[in-house]
Amino acid sequence: MKILITGGAGFLGARLARTLLAQGEYSLRGATPRRIEQVVLADLGAAPPDLAADPRVRSVQGPLLDLVQRRDVPAAGTDAVFHLAAAVSAECEADFDLGMRSNVDTTRALLEACRALGTAPVFVFASSVGVFGRRPGDPPLGVIADDTLPTPQGSYGIQKFICEQLVADYTRKGFIAGRSVRPMTVSVRPGRPNGAASGFFSGMIREPLAGERARIPVGPDVGAALASPSSTIAGFVRAGEATDTEWGHRTAMNLPSLATTVGEMAAALERIAGKQASALLDWSPDASVDRLVRSWPGEVAWERARALGLKADADFDSIVRQYIAENPQAVRLAVR
Amino acid sequence: MKILITGGAGFLGARLARTLLAQGEYSLRGATPRRIEQVVLADLGAAPPDLAADPRVRSVQGPLLDLVQRRDVPAAGTDAVFHLAAAVSAECEADFDLGMRSNVDTTRALLEACRALGTAPVFVFASSVGVFGRRPGDPPLGVIADDTLPTPQGSYGIQKFICEQLVADYTRKGFIAGRSVRPMTVSVRPGRPNGAASGFFSGMIREPLAGERARIPVGPDVGAALASPSSTIAGFVRAGEATDTEWGHRTAMNLPSLATTVGEMAAALERIAGKQASALLDWSPDASVDRLVRSWPGEVAWERARALGLKADADFDSIVRQYIAENPQAVRLAVR
Repeated sequence: MKILITGGAGFLGARLARTLLAQGEYSLRGATPRRIEQVVLADLGAAPPDLAADPRVRSVQGPLLDLVQRRDVPAAGTDAVFHLAAAVSAECEADFDLGMRSNVDTTRALLEACRALGTAPVFVFASSVGVFGRRPGDPPLGVIADDTLPTPQGSYGIQKFICEQLVADYTRKGFIAGRSVRPMTVSVRPGRPNGAASGFFSGMIREPLAGERARIPVGPDVGAALASPSSTIAGFVRAGEATDTEWGHRTAMNLPSLATTVGEMAAALERIAGKQASALLDWSPDASVDRLVRSWPGEVAWERARALGLKADADFDSIVRQYIAENPQAVRLAVR
Repeated sequence: MKILITGGAGFLGARLARTLLAQGEYSLRGATPRRIEQVVLADLGAAPPDLAADPRVRSVQGPLLDLVQRRDVPAAGTDAVFHLAAAVSAECEADFDLGMRSNVDTTRALLEACRALGTAPVFVFASSVGVFGRRPGDPPLGVIADDTLPTPQGSYGIQKFICEQLVADYTRKGFIAGRSVRPMTVSVRPGRPNGAASGFFSGMIREPLAGERARIPVGPDVGAALASPSSTIAGFVRAGEATDTEWGHRTAMNLPSLATTVGEMAAALERIAGKQASALLDWSPDASVDRLVRSWPGEVAWERARALGLKADADFDSIVRQYIAENPQAVRLAVR
């Protein structure tokens, strides 16, 4: 089996590659598991050394649209594509044309290339909870369900939602076997702050654990629909495995989420790393960030994902403990 | 004021042009009405003679994508665009690439050209009730609301829904002042049968009134969300007039519909043209057409359109009478 992962050198893409390579085989749409012969990582950046060292990994570097137009990817015989590459929301908002090219045009080119394979490969598309949003002044979103009408409030969300529609129709036509999933806000992301407005959902845990101060630009009552990295990856993997009947509708599926609040997140940090950790949190709301984050969904239902056997993280404590266990080098404080 | 109507030589486009030219002036987004200096009709076909003879009309013929790429349209100074041109559902289903080009690529090129004007013209986009649909075996759609999640079951519906998203984001960015409307099934269309699966919604009235037989390929209990030509045009006109506040959300708005059944339509025909007319109806259901038509919405709510002061046709009798009054040359039977 040959698998293509776009954005394969990124945090989630590389983690997905490691998960698939570790299991060694994979079942597509309910078929008997087959050995994974090759995982192609397409990305702007270089593959992490551990992946580059795996003989089953081929790394292809460059802008994805170029790679597709040069026919570098998808290779003939590609059985499954995980399409994670995207320009992120801030980029799309700052440069409309870049977003349309990186997200809409690139996805369409990749879908066309998959159609040209003639083998209807599995195509797991990473959409985003960012398709949901509300305009300033509108009532709160309430609980978002799989069949809630998305009303994106940014170009990134619009572009992801357009791609969901393309994936659905390419699937209906039999060009691919598409599955669009909407990952939640991933916490705790390792590494450095990335400047995204949502960055504090990871930074408020990661920085204090490293002994550094972290600013929380919103009030403690702000809600968040979160998922750990491992829960998110489990959703991607299961999407490719599900039979067509299990998958059901061609519309996008919300991945499992833990509904929590920023205040509860801080309390979990204190339970695990003590007052030494929570004392590093600077509660200084920024009115514009607070308003923006409150326009995002705080509670997302995931009935379809539940029916597939997927589970949300049990609580935020376990999310923090997952981060600590996986990133011991980044933790300077004593933890319980 | 300069107005561009794409698909301007078609049935609805020409009727819209006549309506605007007859009123002579038009109010955009609540502003003081201004004189209409020019109406440009862009279409594959030639403008009807009555419109071509109007000195305020300019007719531009060719595939819309070519016209936009050659910068024939929109002309500098265009204040409002009514984008009605589209490949129809059967074409889109038979030729996927044609549909993507005619609907998605063409709309995007037109939006880009409007953006390049730098004046954020009003952009009324004719989407379609065809964005709604259900898969075979799914439960009936029930009542469709403005905020029901569309699940298009054909490429045409997907393409229209993608264009709704583009119009919303071009509007949010301030490139245009976009208003997407979803016209209902228009009945009674004059002229010849066009081969569309929905064609009988007009043919079952039009043909008997002309003394010809008409086949009804579905059962009398099949529901339909209908609008007369004049009700449909009123929706287009009002969309451009509404202030931004009146318009509200950037998502598409369902136009008013009359919820009726095929059986009630036949009864209205008999009330107006007697048993001589209803005797010309051949009730011979075609299983596949019946199934297809039952997958369409039979009842569509239109709260936003109602708040704009729009009205549905009072009953199907009045729709039939509108057709008879406007097409006396096509009516051979005596009518009451």
